[in-house]
Amino acid sequence: MIFEKVSKEELLKRIESFQLKMQEKGIVTSLIFQNVDIYYFTGTMQKSLLVIPEKGNFLFFVQKSIERAKIETPFEFEIHPGEQEIANILKKKGLTKGKIGMELDILPASTFTNWQKLLDNTDFVNIYPIIRELRMIKSGYEIEQIKKAGTIVDHVFKKAKDIIKEGITELELSATLEYEGRKLGHSGILRMRGFNQEMDNITVTHGTSGTITSYADAPILGAGLCPAVPHGSSLKKIEKYLPILIDYGACYNGYVTDETRPFVIEKLDDFFKKPYETTLQIIYKTLEIGREGTNAKDIFNSANEIVKKAHLEDFFMGYGEGKVFFIGHGIGLEINEFPVITPKHDITLKEGMVFAFEPKFIFPQKGVIGIELDFIVRKDKLERVTTTPFELQIL
Amino acid sequence: MIFEKVSKEELLKRIESFQLKMQEKGIVTSLIFQNVDIYYFTGTMQKSLLVIPEKGNFLFFVQKSIERAKIETPFEFEIHPGEQEIANILKKKGLTKGKIGMELDILPASTFTNWQKLLDNTDFVNIYPIIRELRMIKSGYEIEQIKKAGTIVDHVFKKAKDIIKEGITELELSATLEYEGRKLGHSGILRMRGFNQEMDNITVTHGTSGTITSYADAPILGAGLCPAVPHGSSLKKIEKYLPILIDYGACYNGYVTDETRPFVIEKLDDFFKKPYETTLQIIYKTLEIGREGTNAKDIFNSANEIVKKAHLEDFFMGYGEGKVFFIGHGIGLEINEFPVITPKHDITLKEGMVFAFEPKFIFPQKGVIGIELDFIVRKDKLERVTTTPFELQIL
Repeated sequence: MIFEKVSKEELLKRIESFQLKMQEKGIVTSLIFQNVDIYYFTGTMQKSLLVIPEKGNFLFFVQKSIERAKIETPFEFEIHPGEQEIANILKKKGLTKGKIGMELDILPASTFTNWQKLLDNTDFVNIYPIIRELRMIKSGYEIEQIKKAGTIVDHVFKKAKDIIKEGITELELSATLEYEGRKLGHSGILRMRGFNQEMDNITVTHGTSGTITSYADAPILGAGLCPAVPHGSSLKKIEKYLPILIDYGACYNGYVTDETRPFVIEKLDDFFKKPYETTLQIIYKTLEIGREGTNAKDIFNSANEIVKKAHLEDFFMGYGEGKVFFIGHGIGLEINEFPVITPKHDITLKEGMVFAFEPKFIFPQKGVIGIELDFIVRKDKLERVTTTPFELQIL
Repeated sequence: MIFEKVSKEELLKRIESFQLKMQEKGIVTSLIFQNVDIYYFTGTMQKSLLVIPEKGNFLFFVQKSIERAKIETPFEFEIHPGEQEIANILKKKGLTKGKIGMELDILPASTFTNWQKLLDNTDFVNIYPIIRELRMIKSGYEIEQIKKAGTIVDHVFKKAKDIIKEGITELELSATLEYEGRKLGHSGILRMRGFNQEMDNITVTHGTSGTITSYADAPILGAGLCPAVPHGSSLKKIEKYLPILIDYGACYNGYVTDETRPFVIEKLDDFFKKPYETTLQIIYKTLEIGREGTNAKDIFNSANEIVKKAHLEDFFMGYGEGKVFFIGHGIGLEINEFPVITPKHDITLKEGMVFAFEPKFIFPQKGVIGIELDFIVRKDKLERVTTTPFELQIL
């Protein structure tokens, strides 16, 4: 297992692309604080501040660990001299007049108001939309990392077949499959951007445990073990005939996958046959129409048509208050990247986008069925990230 | 395994205590957004907004999931009518004039500036300091949950003795022990408050993998697997004679423990004998002087004296830029609670405080040794959370 570093050339290209987008938006200087964004631009995730002007050289101030930053980033950096001193440096360089970009979607209010004062400026704009746009198109290097994360998921789904037994709990199944992924180099973290966002590495749902609605913008989050951690696998025991969904995310070298497979013991309860067949139809249709140039809305809408024909729209991607209005989401360094496959997101697919596609049905008091696959957008098709068959596994 | 809910009486007491603290600080209304804080006051962790006035009834607006909130909280609540509408309600009730409390340490800048406009107010204050003070003293119920998390840690340290073998990697050891904790009901999450904060459930460090400094305010964070996830266990193989530190946090019913045990195969390398003996002396001394009424500074200072006598001060709690200036931290729903055991924190221990105490030594190029124990402050002593011996285990 060798974790390949991102090249200096690629990092520079990312920063230059970001500067072009800053120019389009009239942003003179961006201050970048978040660990993932800093890693994306510098190759290191140390406590630091990255200052990118609209043109010319960026400034990288590292606070801690200097030792690690030296090993990890190909860039020169300065030792963080304190916030006041950085503000003075930026003022001297004339970088504090005009529109300032910050990650306002996640930067704490107290940090933000402090920097407002330090920079003596009130014109701030959220740069996450342009970072997100940039991060939406993955490089060859990034796709390679996602595919390596995919090999972990492939292993886990293979193992799942041996481990699922009547009577064991979702939690036991989770614990075992988490172990299987971790020992192959899964970092054990799935980053999700946003305030109050938490993400389990694995969620096993089965029958009613999958049907309870959640706080999150996700179709199935699991009942979890307790109100204090209201997501993830529960203590429900595995029963015959009832679909078991294993939703697994692996993180390899920072990049994540997010896939779901359905399993069942002996045979599938008749109730779930139609929604399962409908799930397959949606995937076949998406594989047929998906490629560079397809609009994300069209993927959602064609799926929705299939669902309507099957008269299952009340249960598609949740029911009642739990219904979500997307069928896919970008993945990369975080699990909630762009593109979002929803009628609200008018975006044309482009080569290098990577997204999780997850048609799922949730039937209150009954159970859940669905599939989640990660796709790489190519000129002429959608390429799969993993190789495990996506069809229902009957055990 | 039955996860006991917190009682309505206890929740009401927490809210009343919070209101008293608001009155002391002259805060007229507090808006609470963070999942953990909302859980602390309401018993549910749904997407919601909790509004606490300095006196009288609080308002609880739940957005999603209504279904779960109904099951989980003993309180009545309203369906979240949208932020503008909530602002109107608060204005009508006269709750928006005067000092407004918010969790400014973690609330995103964009959410904050939006609420500034909605409430037409500029006088905001961070309420985390008073929430932290409140959460610092644990109830009997809370201590019970922490002790249950402790039984998971006890199990894991027992298992570790069977699993540690020469030649296996830190990662394999981690994966196995994570599994052992998870199947006993560990929720697989260790919450750490703060921007860019991440916490592994387990970190195995051994020799040089433990000595690399980290971005975090922690003595040992582990080398991790890659620059994109720069913490946690590494691929280093376990060797004889070199101390192996297993730092494990379990989360039971939302409450966490955080303990470390040293292990070694065959015998301890002479180099680590003095720091190990010094670690023990620090623990004995702390057990001798720790009780309600002891100042946290005195615990730190008496430890520091022992370290100085042993001429090990350059390596205590890190070296160089990696040195941290605390020897313990509160635990509860999050892993970085109060009290902090540091000379900077002039605080008198009180019955019901719970903290992790972690004298550790880090020797560059060599390795790490230390112990971490969780203590409950009692009138006449420090009570341990776990029962596993804390001494070095020779395998």
